[in-house]
Amino acid sequence: MLLVSCPDRPGIVAAVANFVAGLRGNIITAEQHTDDTTNTFHQRVVFSAEALTAAEIDASFSVVAEEFDMKYAVREPGWRPRTAILVSRQTHCLADLLSRAFSGELPVDVVAVISDYTDCQEFVVKLGYEFIYLPVEQDRAAQEARLLATLKELDVELVVLARYMRVLPAEIVNTWREQMINIHHSFLPAFVGANPYRQAHERGVKVIGATAHYVTEELDAGPIIEQDVVHVSHRDNPDVLARRGRDLETLVLARAVRAHLEHRILVSGNHTIVFS
Amino acid sequence: MLLVSCPDRPGIVAAVANFVAGLRGNIITAEQHTDDTTNTFHQRVVFSAEALTAAEIDASFSVVAEEFDMKYAVREPGWRPRTAILVSRQTHCLADLLSRAFSGELPVDVVAVISDYTDCQEFVVKLGYEFIYLPVEQDRAAQEARLLATLKELDVELVVLARYMRVLPAEIVNTWREQMINIHHSFLPAFVGANPYRQAHERGVKVIGATAHYVTEELDAGPIIEQDVVHVSHRDNPDVLARRGRDLETLVLARAVRAHLEHRILVSGNHTIVFS
Amino acid sequence: MLLVSCPDRPGIVAAVANFVAGLRGNIITAEQHTDDTTNTFHQRVVFSAEALTAAEIDASFSVVAEEFDMKYAVREPGWRPRTAILVSRQTHCLADLLSRAFSGELPVDVVAVISDYTDCQEFVVKLGYEFIYLPVEQDRAAQEARLLATLKELDVELVVLARYMRVLPAEIVNTWREQMINIHHSFLPAFVGANPYRQAHERGVKVIGATAHYVTEELDAGPIIEQDVVHVSHRDNPDVLARRGRDLETLVLARAVRAHLEHRILVSGNHTIVFS
Amino acid sequence: MLLVSCPDRPGIVAAVANFVAGLRGNIITAEQHTDDTTNTFHQRVVFSAEALTAAEIDASFSVVAEEFDMKYAVREPGWRPRTAILVSRQTHCLADLLSRAFSGELPVDVVAVISDYTDCQEFVVKLGYEFIYLPVEQDRAAQEARLLATLKELDVELVVLARYMRVLPAEIVNTWREQMINIHHSFLPAFVGANPYRQAHERGVKVIGATAHYVTEELDAGPIIEQDVVHVSHRDNPDVLARRGRDLETLVLARAVRAHLEHRILVSGNHTIVFS
Repeated sequence: MLLVSCPDRPGIVAAVANFVAGLRGNIITAEQHTDDTTNTFHQRVVFSAEALTAAEIDASFSVVAEEFDMKYAVREPGWRPRTAILVSRQTHCLADLLSRAFSGELPVDVVAVISDYTDCQEFVVKLGYEFIYLPVEQDRAAQEARLLATLKELDVELVVLARYMRVLPAEIVNTWREQMINIHHSFLPAFVGANPYRQAHERGVKVIGATAHYVTEELDAGPIIEQDVVHVSHRDNPDVLARRGRDLETLVLARAVRAHLEHRILVSGNHTIVFS
Repeated sequence: MLLVSCPDRPGIVAAVANFVAGLRGNIITAEQHTDDTTNTFHQRVVFSAEALTAAEIDASFSVVAEEFDMKYAVREPGWRPRTAILVSRQTHCLADLLSRAFSGELPVDVVAVISDYTDCQEFVVKLGYEFIYLPVEQDRAAQEARLLATLKELDVELVVLARYMRVLPAEIVNTWREQMINIHHSFLPAFVGANPYRQAHERGVKVIGATAHYVTEELDAGPIIEQDVVHVSHRDNPDVLARRGRDLETLVLARAVRAHLEHRILVSGNHTIVFS
Repeated sequence: MLLVSCPDRPGIVAAVANFVAGLRGNIITAEQHTDDTTNTFHQRVVFSAEALTAAEIDASFSVVAEEFDMKYAVREPGWRPRTAILVSRQTHCLADLLSRAFSGELPVDVVAVISDYTDCQEFVVKLGYEFIYLPVEQDRAAQEARLLATLKELDVELVVLARYMRVLPAEIVNTWREQMINIHHSFLPAFVGANPYRQAHERGVKVIGATAHYVTEELDAGPIIEQDVVHVSHRDNPDVLARRGRDLETLVLARAVRAHLEHRILVSGNHTIVFS
Repeated sequence: MLLVSCPDRPGIVAAVANFVAGLRGNIITAEQHTDDTTNTFHQRVVFSAEALTAAEIDASFSVVAEEFDMKYAVREPGWRPRTAILVSRQTHCLADLLSRAFSGELPVDVVAVISDYTDCQEFVVKLGYEFIYLPVEQDRAAQEARLLATLKELDVELVVLARYMRVLPAEIVNTWREQMINIHHSFLPAFVGANPYRQAHERGVKVIGATAHYVTEELDAGPIIEQDVVHVSHRDNPDVLARRGRDLETLVLARAVRAHLEHRILVSGNHTIVFS
């Protein structure tokens, strides 16, 4: 699988297709998108090329890439990243992700669940996953340092923030750039900040949402991967809004993680192209 | 039909039901809602009481209302308000509303379409409606004064801002308080301000929305009546977003106007209860 | 809490409200619905009446009920029924329900998970729930008899069919009438029968759905409790449709179970009133 | 623009891309889809090739097409087909389509509105469109013959059935094969036949839909172009369902017509690929 971004100009599609044909490969799916506003071409090409490894494909593609000034990545379809899930007190997203990992529906290798609370410990341990408790005591920086060390030690490729309620330091965010997914309990950019369901109730909105995004240094402003909404009404008090929100958060995060695992996401500037 | 709001306490429902029974009326539908956060009771009761006029019902209900410190309104079901539609250059909402008025689907008496441009004039006139052209020349205040005078002269009960792109002065807003509905080309409170579809594209949102609300002095902050959303993707450039947005705006505004015409909306603080 | 159904006529709402007032109770929420086509009145009244038990309320309400020819039920809010979940090979709905039960989000007491396969056994047992394996060997009737005996022995009040792929005999269905909820992997009444996602793909539908309903003797024709849909496209092959369908089934079943647990559902003829 | 379908095999994408490159064209967007179940490749390629006409492109592409056994069509982007809208008594879809045509939002040249009733006549005539009244008197076949003659005489390329309530004879259907779009007042394949909203109410569905499809000889079974749904509840009687259905029908039909006008639809077997 090949993910490609470059300035748009004639001949790119032909060059990529000829490259695959030259490997005696067959293109299974190819999706492309040109962003008019930036004149940037993006493509995701899934192809079969039996005997070749990703490294071999990578080496031979570099010639094409150079000609068109491409950023590109070669991915193998059976990817199963070492994954850490970070969570605070609310366990709905975590429970869903672990259930999907347990049943094999999501191809992830959950190497640890890390939390600043113990609310989810029993569930995690019973299912046989590693639980790491990293509370914040007096010193927030100390906890962050331990978190970074833990993630490095575990050799984690993907970090999922499944309702982890702390802002992470730049060093962690930048180490897992485009490899760290957060679920935001709101339809960004509305209701940034605390207590969104109370805000939503007071404002009397008729729709609530949830947003999964890559984490960047600027809080809640990273590239959006997936959003969804449900209709609500005056009958829904803040508690009911929160409950509906939880179901939405769960689903939106699971979809975003899946899109990431299937290499469907290209980041361009501050937004994503999510090939379907 | 009776619309009632009052501080919550035991006995309200019984008092209203006994009142209707005392008129030898039959309750056809009754919906109620108690807002926990403000401890306010709201009710909409549709009942039959054959021989009585709204004025008679009003007079006899005042005793109940006093006891429970109620704000209330008696409405007659066949309401068909004198309505002005204000519009600037985009005609999609206007065309929809006029088509619905023309066919009788929406029970409104459109007494005039008022615009600061002439884009919609031909459509309006061909369908046989009054078109009033109120351009802003040098003097914005002068246009506003003419607009106010026109609305008063026409004896307008309901004002629909169908993509009218000017902020209205307080005097107009307050004269048609809870009788003036605006369609906002966005999912409020996100993307307040100009060019929301470009903002949405740059932010890479996966959902766009539209919001119909009563107009208050604070711009775009009045009680929300109706919202809806559609899913979008990276494939949708700002033009396509705008087009999808137009269809959404059209539908959301039509629904809000209908809810208003059917007396389904109670305003409480800065939000609405929309009985279904 | 009081659930009431009776032929519509003047005075019902007043009679119920006066009954509650007579108990010195306060109506917290009351929703009512009159079905025009059958002229039937339905109401759900949640009220506080501090010192009284359900039995006492029941006894004193019977006078009102008789006068209006009412079917009614008095429910206590903290209901936590003994529940069996039946499942075959697909575990997504089960995993979600158990996670919600485990975290306390759903107020159910899951006394057993019963399956004709062992696919879910590990997950169930690890979480500490009882797993009962009831395979169908030569004799289907024998398995059904054991199932009935097991459910009776466990004194089960609620049965959830979480992708249990066998038709149940009338005796079981009728014993848990309006206490047995099934999730159907389709938007009923379309695509009744096997392999709905393949059918949906071949027909090229642009929307798929899932339906939760009470189980009746007529297969897949019981009162619908909850339905939802997702948009799909030609890009979604039957496997992807099935995956999206699973997420939908999970959510729709959880919502239906919650509505049942909160006594929000009244069955009328072959459809439901689900008070919100 | 090039629409291509052929048996899948290696080299197709490269061949098409090389063809465009050979014209010194630039691919603006290319979407492709391979249907696994039939092993068929579909592609829609929008490209710039300044000096060339569709006929010239067609001629030079035939070599590629032959090699890969392709069905293909060359389309020009500014298409504005001569269109007839057929309608019976309900005017909501018609009013919407005419408004969109009038404002220029939909690039169609509406050469006539044809009806077996006169309900819409006033609206059509006022807006300046041709209205043709073709009632069915004693003889249905006679009306059908006149309809066919009229459509031919008008040299119609696209026929939109905007709630036209008669089954059309095979000769008409086959003459405008894949050029005749119908809106069905239901979520096909559920509730085929008369009075779907009454059926839906009796069945107590929680979601209703509408379906736009190409017309084929088998009633309501042609390739689906677009579907959408809205949530409903027990509170919606058949009249309200019908009203919500009308809004849905209007929107779904408009989207389907737009997709057709933009050459986004490929028909494959009995389903469509609608490129976005």
